[in-house]
Amino acid sequence: MSAKVITITREFGSGGRTIGKEVAQKLGYDFYDWNIVSEVAKESGFAQEFVEENGEDASSTNSFIFRFNNSGSDLMDKLYIAQRKVIKEIADKGNCVIVGRCADYILRERKDALHCFIWADKKFKEERVVNVYGETNESIEKRLVNKDKKRIAHYEYYTGRKWGRPWYYQICLDSSSLGIDTCVDTIVELAGKIDN
Amino acid sequence: MSAKVITITREFGSGGRTIGKEVAQKLGYDFYDWNIVSEVAKESGFAQEFVEENGEDASSTNSFIFRFNNSGSDLMDKLYIAQRKVIKEIADKGNCVIVGRCADYILRERKDALHCFIWADKKFKEERVVNVYGETNESIEKRLVNKDKKRIAHYEYYTGRKWGRPWYYQICLDSSSLGIDTCVDTIVELAGKIDN
Repeated sequence: MSAKVITITREFGSGGRTIGKEVAQKLGYDFYDWNIVSEVAKESGFAQEFVEENGEDASSTNSFIFRFNNSGSDLMDKLYIAQRKVIKEIADKGNCVIVGRCADYILRERKDALHCFIWADKKFKEERVVNVYGETNESIEKRLVNKDKKRIAHYEYYTGRKWGRPWYYQICLDSSSLGIDTCVDTIVELAGKIDN
Repeated sequence: MSAKVITITREFGSGGRTIGKEVAQKLGYDFYDWNIVSEVAKESGFAQEFVEENGEDASSTNSFIFRFNNSGSDLMDKLYIAQRKVIKEIADKGNCVIVGRCADYILRERKDALHCFIWADKKFKEERVVNVYGETNESIEKRLVNKDKKRIAHYEYYTGRKWGRPWYYQICLDSSSLGIDTCVDTIVELAGKIDN
């Protein structure tokens, strides 16, 4: 038996996206990350840029509304519902790795899924973000904090879960001390052992 | 390179102790769990029964004092200090697996350590506790809740950490969906890859 669906929930800069991509390559699975955007745009009628900007991370305004008013706008809710539909359809097709976008929560009841959480220490994330995404005017420290804050606000609002609790994942890994390759190998190995 | 020290922090009933024991056997490492008690008793002068009862889980009274008064009694603090010394000495000798007793926190700065957190779903823990420890007058549900409550109160008071956060562990595993053997194999595999 093996996991038909693998979800990767990750901290910004932890290399979770790269890990997901390599896991997909090794298993011959489809890989879904930004490429979900166009499908969600088609499904919802929203512009691609709108989905890109709001599909995973809350904007500063929404971040505030999610956290302190505990409410989402109609537009945000519609986007979430469209995205959830697309993610469920992708999972139904099977043999896929899905990064982020609350997929761990949306697919929580699937017995054939392996849910993974990837985190890393600050130094690792800072170096990685500069190497992968380049320098910007904003300090690297601020970029990390801001991005995670927006991602967590979106995640917690739409899932009702607290971010980064082991109880939602069969496996959590520290990519900074284990390294990207070891994380990939471990997930591939475990995917082959999921009883479903 | 490989991990010289492995710590296992676990929920009651998750099989974490068994996993630690089997990891130690496979690696040819020393295994420390209840057998720490006699060393701590020697070190501290406390009776063995006292160490057994208070070395890892708070009593009902202490649980209350830890959580709501945020203070420990002199006796508890002395016991913790003696236990910390014993755990550090065991780690210095190397090639060991240590279960519970805040070892993840006490040894947090060792670069040669692999820190693991094991959890399981309620059904798995309930079945396991009855199979391993037998029936008692107390309902199984109450036993699980009470035991974890006391363990968490002790852990959080002495470490200043929140229980069960992935950021303290290179790996967290769900023994209920992965199975004991897979958890053992995964930890043994990772232990061989720790860069120190």
